[in-house]
This record gives sequence, C-alpha cells and structure tokens, in this order.
Amino acid sequence: MKSIKLGIIGLGTIGSATVKNLLKSKELIKESYGLDVVISSICDKRKDLAKKFKDIVFTAEPFDIVRSSEIDVVVELIGGINPAFEVIKESLKSGKDVVTANKALLAEKGSVLFDLAARRNSGRLRFEASVCGGVPVIRSIASHLSLAGIRSIVGILNGTTNYILSNMADFGGGFEENLKDAQIIGYAEKDPSLDIKGIDSLHKLSILSYLCFGRSLPLSKVFVEGIENISDLDIKYARELGYVIKLLAVARLLPNNKIEARVHPAFIPNNHSLAQVKGSFNAVFINTERAGEFLFSGLGAGGDATSTAVIADIVSLAKEYPHTYIASRNKNADLVNPARFSFRYYLRLSAVDKPGVLAKISRILADYKVSIASVTQKQRDSARFVPIIMLTHKARETSLLKAKAKIDSLSVINPPTQVIRIEEI
Amino acid sequence: MKSIKLGIIGLGTIGSATVKNLLKSKELIKESYGLDVVISSICDKRKDLAKKFKDIVFTAEPFDIVRSSEIDVVVELIGGINPAFEVIKESLKSGKDVVTANKALLAEKGSVLFDLAARRNSGRLRFEASVCGGVPVIRSIASHLSLAGIRSIVGILNGTTNYILSNMADFGGGFEENLKDAQIIGYAEKDPSLDIKGIDSLHKLSILSYLCFGRSLPLSKVFVEGIENISDLDIKYARELGYVIKLLAVARLLPNNKIEARVHPAFIPNNHSLAQVKGSFNAVFINTERAGEFLFSGLGAGGDATSTAVIADIVSLAKEYPHTYIASRNKNADLVNPARFSFRYYLRLSAVDKPGVLAKISRILADYKVSIASVTQKQRDSARFVPIIMLTHKARETSLLKAKAKIDSLSVINPPTQVIRIEEI
Repeated sequence: MKSIKLGIIGLGTIGSATVKNLLKSKELIKESYGLDVVISSICDKRKDLAKKFKDIVFTAEPFDIVRSSEIDVVVELIGGINPAFEVIKESLKSGKDVVTANKALLAEKGSVLFDLAARRNSGRLRFEASVCGGVPVIRSIASHLSLAGIRSIVGILNGTTNYILSNMADFGGGFEENLKDAQIIGYAEKDPSLDIKGIDSLHKLSILSYLCFGRSLPLSKVFVEGIENISDLDIKYARELGYVIKLLAVARLLPNNKIEARVHPAFIPNNHSLAQVKGSFNAVFINTERAGEFLFSGLGAGGDATSTAVIADIVSLAKEYPHTYIASRNKNADLVNPARFSFRYYLRLSAVDKPGVLAKISRILADYKVSIASVTQKQRDSARFVPIIMLTHKARETSLLKAKAKIDSLSVINPPTQVIRIEEI
Repeated sequence: MKSIKLGIIGLGTIGSATVKNLLKSKELIKESYGLDVVISSICDKRKDLAKKFKDIVFTAEPFDIVRSSEIDVVVELIGGINPAFEVIKESLKSGKDVVTANKALLAEKGSVLFDLAARRNSGRLRFEASVCGGVPVIRSIASHLSLAGIRSIVGILNGTTNYILSNMADFGGGFEENLKDAQIIGYAEKDPSLDIKGIDSLHKLSILSYLCFGRSLPLSKVFVEGIENISDLDIKYARELGYVIKLLAVARLLPNNKIEARVHPAFIPNNHSLAQVKGSFNAVFINTERAGEFLFSGLGAGGDATSTAVIADIVSLAKEYPHTYIASRNKNADLVNPARFSFRYYLRLSAVDKPGVLAKISRILADYKVSIASVTQKQRDSARFVPIIMLTHKARETSLLKAKAKIDSLSVINPPTQVIRIEEI
C-alpha cells in the first residue's frame, strides 16, 4: 500500500482537528483510497504538547520539518504571513508538497507561491481549506467549473459576519449586541476587525478570483465595506421589502477583460438561495457561460469541517483521485423496510360536511396512535365535500396507512385521502 | 504537451454538446491544464452525420472505437443498457478509460462495472455527468465529503419533476397541464414515466448511495412514489402551511448499518435551502459526521451543462488535477473602478417631519439622475425625525453618492442617510 509521510506545523483549531481526524479516519482512508497516511512530525511553539504524541517526532522549530528528508507533505496551519511564507517557499523549493489553509498569505503572496509551485521539480501546493472551510469550492472550480467558462462569483465567504447578520434578522438586536454574543461563543475574535470590515472576505475573494479568472486581486484597490454600520432598522426594513442583508464578496469578469471586484453588505431577495445561507455557513454562487448557475454551501469554519478540506488535499496529493471510487467497499445495500418509516404527515381529506365527521376521523387516527398537530377545515366549494387539512406529529408509516385505509372506507370520505410526508432535513 | 485521444459514441443532446464544447475549449484546456484533447473518432447510427466532421474518423459501429488501438478514452453517451454495457465492459477490459453519463446503466449494472474498473490493468471509469448534470457532486463526494463521514443525502435529482412542481407552485395549474407544458418545451419526454414515477431519481440515488456508503441499492426493493398524484390543491395548502412540495430522493446510513432509501414527494419547509431549488435545477443536501451540512445545486440537465461534467472527467483522467492550478494564466487583475459601479439602492433617510422635505429629497435625486422605485414614509417614533425608506432604480454609484452627500447636507436630515446596494444575482 502506498504510504505518505506528513509534517504538520501548527496545532491551533484546524491543526489539532486535522491530527485528530487523520488518526480517526486512518482505516477509512486505507480502505477507500488504498493509502496509508502517516503523521511523522508535528511542530508547535508550545513544547509541552509533545507529551501528547507517541511515535511522532515533536519540534518547536518549523524548519526542522521543512528540512527533514523523511517528510513528503508539509501541512502549514500556523496562519499569518511570517514564518508561514518562508516555510511554504522553502518546502516547495525542496520538492515537498504543501497543504495550507492560510488565506491571508495566499491573498498577499499567492502569486509568488503559485508561480513557484508551477516550476518543474517544485512541490505542489493545495489550499482547499483557505476558502469556505469544508466546502470543496476550490477543487470544484479548478477541476470542473472553470471548464464551463466562469462569468461571476458571488460569495458569502465570512462566517462571523454572516452569523451576526442572520442573528440580527432572526433574533433581533443591534450590531454591537450580536457581535458581543458572537465573541462570547467564540464565533468572533477579540479583535473582530478583519472579519467585520470585510478583509477576510477580500482575502478569500482574491483566491477565488485567481482560480476563476487567473487573476489575483490588487488588495488595496478593491472596494471593501464592512458590516459595522448595518443597524437593526435596516434589517427590519429589508425584511418588509422582501430582502435580507448579507456581506457579499463579488467578482465578475467583464467583456473588456476587466474584473469587477467588491466586498460590501447588500440586499438580496428573500427567495434567492443565498438568502437561506445562515449562521456561520458560507456559500459561493457561480455563474458560468455554458453550464448555468451553481451554488455550493456548507460550514465555513470550525476545526472539524475545515480539517476535512485539509485531509482531502493530503489524499489528493498522494492519490489524486482514487483509481476507481470506493469499489472495494461495494456490496448491495441492506435496506430499511419502508414499513419501519416514520414521518410527520400532511393529510388532505375530503369529507361530507356534517356533524361528527371530524370526531370519527380523529378517533380512527387516535386508535392507530397517530397524533394530530394541526387541523384546518376549509370552506366548502360547490360540492357536498369539504377539504380538511391535517398535519400530524411523527407517526409510524404502517400505522398511518392503516388509519388512512380505515378513514377512506368511511362513506363520508371521497375521494381517498391525500398523504404527503413532511421531510425533516 | 501531453495529448489524449478520444472516441465519442453517441451524438444525442449530450454527445453533440460534448463535441462542440471540446472543440470550443481546446485552447483553454491546453492553457489551463497543459493538455491537448484530440477527438479521434466519433460513432453514431446516423451515418449522414459523417460529413460534419473533418479529420475525425466516423463510424456507425461502436465496437470500432472499443477495438481501436488509437483511442485512450471511450466516451459512452448512447444511454440505455444495450449495447452500452458491452461497450463499457470491453473498453475497460482492454485497458481503455471510460467516461459515461449513463445513470440507468450504472444503477442496473454498476457493481459489475465498478468491480471491473478496480482491477489491475483495467481502464478507469468516470461518471460525473450521470447525476445532477453539470454539478460536480460525484467528484466532491468521492474526493472530499466521504472523508467527513457521510450520514445522509437528500436530493432533488430529477429536473423534469422539479420543473413541473415548481411551475405548479409559482404559476398555478394542475399536474397534467404542467406536464404538457414541460413536454412542449422539451423538458419532459413523450413518455415521461421514468421521470414522473421517480425511476430516474432512483437510478441517481443508487449511484450516490454507492459513492456515499459503498452500497448499491437493490432497485426493485426501494420505496418509490412518483408525483402523478400531486394536485394543485396540495401545492396551495403546502404554501399556506409554509411548505413546498418536492420530489425527494433520500438515502441515510443508520447506526445498524442499514440504509434507509426512498423516493417520493415530500413537504419541505419554505425556508430550507432545498425549497429554493426551482425549475430544472437539481440539488443534493448532504449531512456529514464531522463537517456539518453541504448543499450543491445547479442545472441538472441540458447538453451544455452536462457536457461540462463529461469534459471535466476527460481532463481528470489525463491530468487528475492540474499540477498547480491555472498559474500560467496568472497576473494581477485589471479592476473595474468602483466609480463605475451601478446598482439599485436601498436608502434609509432620517428627516424632519415637515412639509416639503420629501420634495427636496426627490429633487436632489432627480438632479443626479437617480430614479425612485418606491418610497415609504414610516410612522414617527418619539423623535422629531421620521425614517423614509426608498428603493431606487438602477443608478450610477457616483451619482448616487453625490446625491446622498447633498441630501445629508440638508439641515432637515440627521443622521446621514443609510445606503445599501441591492444585489442582482
């Protein structure tokens, strides 16, 4: 079995989650991808963390890992520009592959690193975790959507600001109050300005612009406005007008080959799919020439989610794709018997409009342990029959269907009752 | 430059779009991926199509392509079980890579083909286009999300039924009427039963189940219900209750290792992101153990969209990933000057509540060619100032900002006016 040796630098939120989840999924990765991922070395400034790791070399000096001849892949998770820039540069030069989540570095110094990684004999560079946490947008753009001719991207790229704005909309309160809440539960930093002022979104937009259009953004020239001036009044009036407010990062390739790039709060219509992206979720909406529109969304932050992207990058470096997908695990599924389904249900009954009918129906449902959550009896149309709309609490499908059969056999019911399951997603 | 030689079998909707877009993006693929994709042979029953292609071998016999020693990748786009099954089997056995969009075949005979493709010396098999048209769900699951531990998938996997259901909801009319409309514009087949009865969704669900859980579905045992009994009344009541009706394909891995699999119409809450998936769009909602929830959506059908997935598969076979992303094209972006932005705007003014104020404001906006779409003057609170909410038509940002500055300089305005852009996505 092919084996790959990692040096992981930085045990912050993403670093520790990466180590934990690599150890946890070691067997899964062997089974699915035929690959043995070995953590050879770990580096962190806090030397006392060494005792947590057996059989793994521990160092406080990043360049020990960069210079080790043991290591195939350097996983840079310290963030910031220094020493991350030198670490990645030296690693690539020495032919080591690099995985990083460092969006600030890629936005500031990406073109140097990308050019370096493109050289013969250089290591390769992967950075899926730098945008949208665990959502595979970079992989999807680079290996797929760019073939459809990308015209524009509209992103909700920062979880902190989206959390604040959605909480203002859903639970009320002003900006300051919701920012404080976000700080208390750890969704916002003590100094939240990188997020709040749109700089983090700008960094990610620059990376996406590079992937979509082959152009990095001159950061200081991009139009950037934060969310610090959005008041609860704006949120309220937006709602009344059928909109929500989101911090958007937009890049669009114009016919004259210029790029329209901007980060600012914006109204978007309530019924647009981006309007449903709430809390610390991120999303990217991509418009293409030949394949229409795409939406990708998912958790934009958090160690576990982001470490998935780091691990996917590591696997991709060793295997690119699995030779075939997970064939070794394939066998016929052992299905749950539909008789064991349970749901909440919508029932539409058509009943003769006379006293005692609803009582009869309710009695039958109760006999089969189907509990009613709401009932609305609609106005009678022309016919003798009136529609009755019921939502049930969760019930066994078998019970519900037996009750339905019994109800439909009543002479006061015609035609048979409509049953639709309510999906709890 | 690396070169790859294709034999394309079948010139239906997807086949012709694939040929067209491969020729169109030939230079883009060279530039971005360092790969020269050459169409060596094309096969179609209609021999008269031969004259459309110069420098490409044309044949009416699929096995000419399977047996050609010239060809690296066989692109099977004829659909159906026969002769597609034999074509793919023989191609893989002879070591040729295969790209297919054939969901019915993969659902029926996938396990044979996947096992074959997993053998040493066999060709590799790619099938991104078989589920959700142009949306890279298969790639994302296989190379990324499966590492997060997939718990469940909920898909809107069939464009025809989603088109009918969303039109019933948005424009009214019953099932039969909307089905006929869909047939007229070519979104539904003459015999629409595979789509309407949920079979096409089942096929795609089986492929996703294989990827997510390593289990194919025993097709005949899965619970499947179509949309043919959904009435306009159900759609109406769903809306009144805060729901929409979608044809869902659901697969969930239970703790006992069984799989709950089902295809049926279901209510989903209006504010769920899947509820916004309309028309012929497809979407997959994936819940994972370690990385939360993901949504992918995009065009689920149409030649151009689906051909993007076919072409991405072809590129992946030759290059897997680009060595580094599109570095060769990278340079600093030439940005649109924010001064040239134009938007529709939301304005929240705070004005003294006295006669003539609104006239003054409107005058200034008109002077700067900012046209008002709607105005609402809100009830005065305790203060002397009342909020006025305006939506504008599209206006130049520079004009709008000048008008705002002028308005804010009025003594009757305090504090300065809030401006938020309305995003047209």
